[in-house]
Amino acid sequence: MKGFGRRGVLGAAVGLAGAVRATGLANADEKPPSQPPLIKTASLPPDPTLPFHGPNQNGIVTPMQAHTSFAAFDLLADKAADVAALMRAWTDAAAQLTQGLPLAASGDPAAMPGDSGEADGLPPNRLTLTFGFGPGLFSADGVDRYGLARYRPEAFVDLPRFVGDQLVPERTGGDLSVQVCGDDKQAVFHALRAIMRVADGVARVRWVQSGFLPGSAPKTTPRNLMGFKDGTANLDLSDPDAVTRHLWVGEEGGAWMRGGSYAVVRPIRIALEHWDRMKLAFQEQTVGREKASGAAIGAKKEFAAADLDAVDGDGNPMIAENAHIRLASPKTNDGAQILRRGYGYDNGVSMVAERWPPWRHQMELDAGLLFVCYQRDPRAGFIRIFDRMARFDMMNQFVTPVGGGLFACPGGVAPGRYLGQNLFEA
Amino acid sequence: MKGFGRRGVLGAAVGLAGAVRATGLANADEKPPSQPPLIKTASLPPDPTLPFHGPNQNGIVTPMQAHTSFAAFDLLADKAADVAALMRAWTDAAAQLTQGLPLAASGDPAAMPGDSGEADGLPPNRLTLTFGFGPGLFSADGVDRYGLARYRPEAFVDLPRFVGDQLVPERTGGDLSVQVCGDDKQAVFHALRAIMRVADGVARVRWVQSGFLPGSAPKTTPRNLMGFKDGTANLDLSDPDAVTRHLWVGEEGGAWMRGGSYAVVRPIRIALEHWDRMKLAFQEQTVGREKASGAAIGAKKEFAAADLDAVDGDGNPMIAENAHIRLASPKTNDGAQILRRGYGYDNGVSMVAERWPPWRHQMELDAGLLFVCYQRDPRAGFIRIFDRMARFDMMNQFVTPVGGGLFACPGGVAPGRYLGQNLFEA
Repeated sequence: MKGFGRRGVLGAAVGLAGAVRATGLANADEKPPSQPPLIKTASLPPDPTLPFHGPNQNGIVTPMQAHTSFAAFDLLADKAADVAALMRAWTDAAAQLTQGLPLAASGDPAAMPGDSGEADGLPPNRLTLTFGFGPGLFSADGVDRYGLARYRPEAFVDLPRFVGDQLVPERTGGDLSVQVCGDDKQAVFHALRAIMRVADGVARVRWVQSGFLPGSAPKTTPRNLMGFKDGTANLDLSDPDAVTRHLWVGEEGGAWMRGGSYAVVRPIRIALEHWDRMKLAFQEQTVGREKASGAAIGAKKEFAAADLDAVDGDGNPMIAENAHIRLASPKTNDGAQILRRGYGYDNGVSMVAERWPPWRHQMELDAGLLFVCYQRDPRAGFIRIFDRMARFDMMNQFVTPVGGGLFACPGGVAPGRYLGQNLFEA
Repeated sequence: MKGFGRRGVLGAAVGLAGAVRATGLANADEKPPSQPPLIKTASLPPDPTLPFHGPNQNGIVTPMQAHTSFAAFDLLADKAADVAALMRAWTDAAAQLTQGLPLAASGDPAAMPGDSGEADGLPPNRLTLTFGFGPGLFSADGVDRYGLARYRPEAFVDLPRFVGDQLVPERTGGDLSVQVCGDDKQAVFHALRAIMRVADGVARVRWVQSGFLPGSAPKTTPRNLMGFKDGTANLDLSDPDAVTRHLWVGEEGGAWMRGGSYAVVRPIRIALEHWDRMKLAFQEQTVGREKASGAAIGAKKEFAAADLDAVDGDGNPMIAENAHIRLASPKTNDGAQILRRGYGYDNGVSMVAERWPPWRHQMELDAGLLFVCYQRDPRAGFIRIFDRMARFDMMNQFVTPVGGGLFACPGGVAPGRYLGQNLFEA
């Protein structure tokens, strides 16, 4: 596994020089003309730079940023060494990007710029990059193409087909994945573009879905595109036992997955026009929460635990049997918990033939939830929870999973090492 | 034109109650569990609320916000009164939304919520909504369907087909337009969704394109997705004569267009993978500026005027004859100026058969520039400038206009009136 040069992967375009990003400071003494329509921004936090290295990958327990782009790639390489070289190049690039450094800003006019430049002068804005391996790294069409099949952990199953899935191939699967997150949309775009360039010739982008969150005040729960607070009940990261049990892979995954986590990603289109025609009480029954306060039905406060056993005067459950929060609750799923880290998405509009009254055939919002969750074992996490939800959740009449996949995100790295090194050099 | 009720337009879902947006303050005494992965944001400016009413529409000279969604609509209405009622409903909705107020938050569980709710608790984040009228309001298929054809100003020509245009119908044209801008992506999404709901049954969304800008430091020029500073030379809004001459329509447009402006909108796909393979010197020759500093070639500072007459030792022009900034310059266009207000866009990836070496057929970035400009007279503005650029600009080998249109944005309104009232009640 040694002796392969990363030049072959990087090509001429991308060296990873440590030059500080050019910021045009040489022009700081100049004044622009009055009132050009330039962007005004809120003042930035003092150091929006997050560490890249550590025992776990960044972007998993990082407090959620305002923007994301999730991308999946198909591997083109014939040899494991080329994939390993790509992982080293990606690791080095991610370390640079998260610290606000450009890729090879040589400034040589006779050379291709190593960095595309649109993030020059921008702080990192809490940029994180989280990488994962799809099933195709271990076997494709039944072939162990890189000699890695024996290192595939038992927990890394193929995601089953769930009731209601309408997955389309061009938005599904992939051999490698990266989730870029950050507070500046252009910095996120720039980072993904750089990652795509670094992959040139070794892996080819298969699908991309971007997403966003509202800029809620700190410590308030953001609302999703259905208008409900989303994230009130999530894995409690302040509980080390819960994190160990539910989030990080231990010894069972082999050295390369220790400290890693499995990501399930699912772009889920929501029929927002349909949802918007539902009465408030019906929306609340569907979710199992009050829309305004976020409190579980029957509770008074947002963070009060939902009482799934509460019944009304007629003995009927206060929170419906098929309400979303009941079916998602650890109590309904043998204690299963996942760390949700989803974003809204907005792909503009596309043609829809409505399957509901008033049965229109027209352009509708192509928007919804880019569902992302992390867990120690998908069999005991998403698959256990979602199998029941897919069949019974009242919300299903409004939502359609259209793509996604399951990716094994290896443990974090120390400086000088690369993501997945324990797999490729096992 | 009097006596039509706006209920018919609004339907049951949307009343415009002035209730302050529900913010969940009743739960302010509760604490969330530690470290849920909620968004952290930079501190917001003290009052991110912009006035909606005034002699001009908002969102034109407003310093550019971080996010936009531009939408075009097809009219379904048979009668001018229904269109006028929609414009009143849209005006009222926009006045509410820009002030951070929800649409009809009755809280009645037996009713459809008037507001979809995903912006509850968010400040307006400098939200603006700018409305326009397409050619189809005045005539469609040669028919003067609303009796308004005689009010179409001479300046409101049909946009010609330019060399290189690859406009697709599903991203082109429209009878009505709205550009939503704001610093929070979810607040922008919410506003457009509300505008679509208000239009229900009267106008149907035809196409939507969202966009973004980098969160540059105030008074620095943002970079576009080609990595170059964009907006260095733009209409100088501090010069009242220039603004009068180039931006706002005067008496020549009739009462309804006085204080208005014409918007040209063009989503322009950029072959970023191709551009990224070009040498720095070639990129700079193409644009006519240095990439790092933004200075015109031959100048030293970003805001120094470009010297289009400068020649090198061999007598060749320093700024190429077909450089982008030469062809865009007022000096090359009989003094023509427009106010550019464009955004980058990111539609993920889509399949491209490359027309350049190395001739690949693969998924590539579906990204580029959502070009938007405003002007007093499109014949003396965009059309004059772009006719030459479309034929000669060296940049054309990397950019493809794929849609858009020309929209007449009427003058602003006082409280109690609606946009376009001087047209519908002429």
